[in-house]
Amino acid sequence: MPEETTSRPHIVTCTAPVNIAVVKYWGKRDEDLILPISSSLSVTLHQDQLKTTTTVAISTSFKVDRMWLNGKEEDITHPRLQSCLREIRRLARKRRNDGEPDSTESTGLSHKVHICSVNNFPTAAGLASSAAGFACLVYSLAQAFGVEGDLSGIARQGSGSACRSMYGGFVQWIMGNRDDGKDSIAQQVEPESHWPELRILVLVASAKRKPIGSTSGMQTSVQTSVLLKHRAESVVPHRMDKMIKAVQKRDFAAFAEITMKDSNQFHATCLDTYPPIFYLNSVSQQIIHLVHRYNGHYRESRVAYSFDAGPNAVIFTLQQHVPEFVRVVQHFFPPDTNGEDFIKGLPVKGAAISEELKEAIGLEPTPNGINYIISTKAGPGPCIIEDSSQHLLSPDGFPKKAL
Amino acid sequence: MPEETTSRPHIVTCTAPVNIAVVKYWGKRDEDLILPISSSLSVTLHQDQLKTTTTVAISTSFKVDRMWLNGKEEDITHPRLQSCLREIRRLARKRRNDGEPDSTESTGLSHKVHICSVNNFPTAAGLASSAAGFACLVYSLAQAFGVEGDLSGIARQGSGSACRSMYGGFVQWIMGNRDDGKDSIAQQVEPESHWPELRILVLVASAKRKPIGSTSGMQTSVQTSVLLKHRAESVVPHRMDKMIKAVQKRDFAAFAEITMKDSNQFHATCLDTYPPIFYLNSVSQQIIHLVHRYNGHYRESRVAYSFDAGPNAVIFTLQQHVPEFVRVVQHFFPPDTNGEDFIKGLPVKGAAISEELKEAIGLEPTPNGINYIISTKAGPGPCIIEDSSQHLLSPDGFPKKAL
Repeated sequence: MPEETTSRPHIVTCTAPVNIAVVKYWGKRDEDLILPISSSLSVTLHQDQLKTTTTVAISTSFKVDRMWLNGKEEDITHPRLQSCLREIRRLARKRRNDGEPDSTESTGLSHKVHICSVNNFPTAAGLASSAAGFACLVYSLAQAFGVEGDLSGIARQGSGSACRSMYGGFVQWIMGNRDDGKDSIAQQVEPESHWPELRILVLVASAKRKPIGSTSGMQTSVQTSVLLKHRAESVVPHRMDKMIKAVQKRDFAAFAEITMKDSNQFHATCLDTYPPIFYLNSVSQQIIHLVHRYNGHYRESRVAYSFDAGPNAVIFTLQQHVPEFVRVVQHFFPPDTNGEDFIKGLPVKGAAISEELKEAIGLEPTPNGINYIISTKAGPGPCIIEDSSQHLLSPDGFPKKAL
Repeated sequence: MPEETTSRPHIVTCTAPVNIAVVKYWGKRDEDLILPISSSLSVTLHQDQLKTTTTVAISTSFKVDRMWLNGKEEDITHPRLQSCLREIRRLARKRRNDGEPDSTESTGLSHKVHICSVNNFPTAAGLASSAAGFACLVYSLAQAFGVEGDLSGIARQGSGSACRSMYGGFVQWIMGNRDDGKDSIAQQVEPESHWPELRILVLVASAKRKPIGSTSGMQTSVQTSVLLKHRAESVVPHRMDKMIKAVQKRDFAAFAEITMKDSNQFHATCLDTYPPIFYLNSVSQQIIHLVHRYNGHYRESRVAYSFDAGPNAVIFTLQQHVPEFVRVVQHFFPPDTNGEDFIKGLPVKGAAISEELKEAIGLEPTPNGINYIISTKAGPGPCIIEDSSQHLLSPDGFPKKAL
């Protein structure tokens, strides 16, 4: 940290990733602390394709805490934002009280914060941005206040799945048992380098209606679905063990089967909710059929789907199957464009598909059912951006761009 | 039975009803005997609207057993048909051996049968006809062979849900525990006269694809869905008790809630099947939303939906709500016709619907999402048709109409 007067803001910028659960999180046992009814496991997506960037400035000259999100000032009093701010400041205070050297300056307990955050993907894409957003917020605040150690328990209090975005690669969120939530934290199972062939395709669907939000949805599910209770108590523990083994052994067939079964079971518990919740629409159903028929044609699980509380499909596959599978998606969901803008992210080679394969899948094509595909892979956890030109806040601590 | 020569066929004609499960049957513990993994409960629909008619002729002059279904000769060697024929003949033989008077003539053990069966509803309507069909077959055969007593255990061996079509009104199928299935039978909970205000609307949907059949579907579910296992063991027994009480007390709110929850849970277990099975399409989802919003508007459960292994919605409501609700369906699923042919069965009075109600439902209308509505109510079990002019077989035992 450079020398500075107390009135000059101390500024840090960090980025954090999106994650996709392959053993799903659905249902809280504590709404305030965000404690889940079961453990979950996710793959952290690469930030070259999808990330949140957050700049935090702290200064004694700021009068109040303020926050700007995607260019618009947000209400900083939101309880979950306040939880994260409070917890980071508590750790900073604890560190000072423990008498660590040189901590008086960096803890900045009398400092207010300015936070500015942007996503590199459109909100309209329907990708859950709260996990990356809260992970990035907590990581940046921790940098600014000089707090170290596991921060996933704090990110969790911003948005449950944010705790898994605190690590790269393959990450489990251990549900924990304690009432105070201290043991409900994320842990890396394997780093992103563990399985270099794994590829992830986000099929961005065109949703007509905004589905019910996950917070209220899972509340209703916990209250009404007896199948969710059974899933949490009796299915997920065993499934977590199997999934961790599949990841460790890079066993794609096992990984694919658990991923698909778990996605389906999550949506089954949504349907068992009263009134029922539907996140899968007719395009989702077609993608599910397509994947099973594609795998059936090759008599092995080459591709797996996963659907969250929104319309997008996330596809897991291995590098060598990407070109053909993308071509299959393009064939059955023909885009208006010539396909130039259809594939974003990691480049995908051209491929031909056989008539046998088309016939084996045998679906009626749905034009424009999928807007575009983001091609990506597993990636690292939050990063610090050293280049100060990347700060979203100017040296005075206010957003660089006119709002 | 009139005096006749042995060469003149003995002919009987019966009718049997369709039934709609409100606690669903899904999953067998024995494929051959058709023994279920859980009990179920249904409402028998009135035969004025939906029925199967079957004529059975028995004669020593017939060379082989034969069967005609909706005007087309069917393969009589089908194992489930054979099960029913064998069981009826076994009972007839048992009766003769028990030495009941006047039974030698009627048991006709050396007689072959000709069977002719028609439905009064189009197969294209997608209504499960196998329950009414096998109930009618078994009832008619029993009449022809002079067999009495509970026949639901035999009908069950034709098609599981057929056992419930052996009684009118509200009928439970007790799953039983025995390996030989002798205790897996249907029982009437209440007769059709018990709840005269109850009305049933079958919303015949326009399905584009034929969904997976229930026999293979439930096999896959039993093999792969852990949620189905839990449902059968831990959810259905309690739900059966509550449903029987709701029927006995004519408690529509309780009846409606269990009906909807159970339909949803059945479809949830289909989604938890691997690969997943989808019976609910986008029109089904809209009907579900419509019903919940309709009930929400009135702050009481006035209407309940139930979906089987096909696209049709079955609506339960009370007589006084029928006109308005039908108008609502017509508004959000506008038919091409002026509505003349849209409603079949029991007449439905015209009704106006308020702008507030339309707004409360707030769905985008889906033209022709529903082909037509069959308006009906609970009805009696199988009946004998005394009028010989109604026989589907001529006195020589062959189909009356040219095939």
